Amino acid sequence: MMTSAPSPEQRLNDRLAAGAGITLATAESCSGGGVAARITAVSGSSNYFLGGVVAYANDAKADVLGVPRPVLETRGAVSAECAAAMAEGARRLFGATLAVSTTGIAGPGGGTPRKPVGLVYLALAGPAGTRVERRQFAGDRAAVTDAAIERALALLVEGVEETLRARR
Amino acid sequence: MMTSAPSPEQRLNDRLAAGAGITLATAESCSGGGVAARITAVSGSSNYFLGGVVAYANDAKADVLGVPRPVLETRGAVSAECAAAMAEGARRLFGATLAVSTTGIAGPGGGTPRKPVGLVYLALAGPAGTRVERRQFAGDRAAVTDAAIERALALLVEGVEETLRARR
Repeated sequence: MMTSAPSPEQRLNDRLAAGAGITLATAESCSGGGVAARITAVSGSSNYFLGGVVAYANDAKADVLGVPRPVLETRGAVSAECAAAMAEGARRLFGATLAVSTTGIAGPGGGTPRKPVGLVYLALAGPAGTRVERRQFAGDRAAVTDAAIERALALLVEGVEETLRARR
Repeated sequence: MMTSAPSPEQRLNDRLAAGAGITLATAESCSGGGVAARITAVSGSSNYFLGGVVAYANDAKADVLGVPRPVLETRGAVSAECAAAMAEGARRLFGATLAVSTTGIAGPGGGTPRKPVGLVYLALAGPAGTRVERRQFAGDRAAVTDAAIERALALLVEGVEETLRARR
């Protein structure tokens, strides 16, 4: 039997629980709180996880996370610009070192030819700036949500490792 | 084989998806985003779920949800007063009809004789006011978290049914 690799949320704990001084926040739309739930399932996460916003409605994205209304009106909530603004908004709101965001179309409804079901934008905001990625996930609502959660956690692990490296 | 009862998140959808004009928000500490994740796992939840805050750090409870600092300092984050202020803060922040909150000690660490592991306060804020309950759940971190999520969802169902009844 193979030994399974540690989960990304466990890797976050391994690197941060000892007090690296790196804190995390989340801004979730299509993942619906699942990223925060995975992070906080690990005992000790209160040492580095400050909090998150589940911004499901557009007004929540604008009013709570500070996504500019013109971004929502011209690019839409499922866009690279919105994902970046969500992550930057959560980083600012919670005063975190790193923040990750998800915004996409989990389905089964809501897809269009240009923005099909399974399209998800994710962003990571941190001391080195903000980066965004576009993913097209397959499967039903649960599969798309799970894939977005996994990718968001992986982005946080990458961000933590980069931040630790930059400090050396 | 018995037919299983619909889940609370499905019951919320059954009552609200058709456009009852009732909207929901969440303010989660010990449940870590799990209440929002359960609500949004149901397709159509974007019709009534506006968003939520996962307020893990005390600063997040104060700065994002508006929990008064004296409440955190004198009663603590795991208290009836904090649960009430969290739910009221989320209701105000998202402009929702109803908001539910959780704050407790999921364990395995963090327990004290007066506030043991498994102690969870939940609050429901709505048009009829705010009510708080204190629960003592058994089991490990996952069991306490799951129990808090189930109870928070049940409170939202109760709140929706009461709000619908009050309108008749």
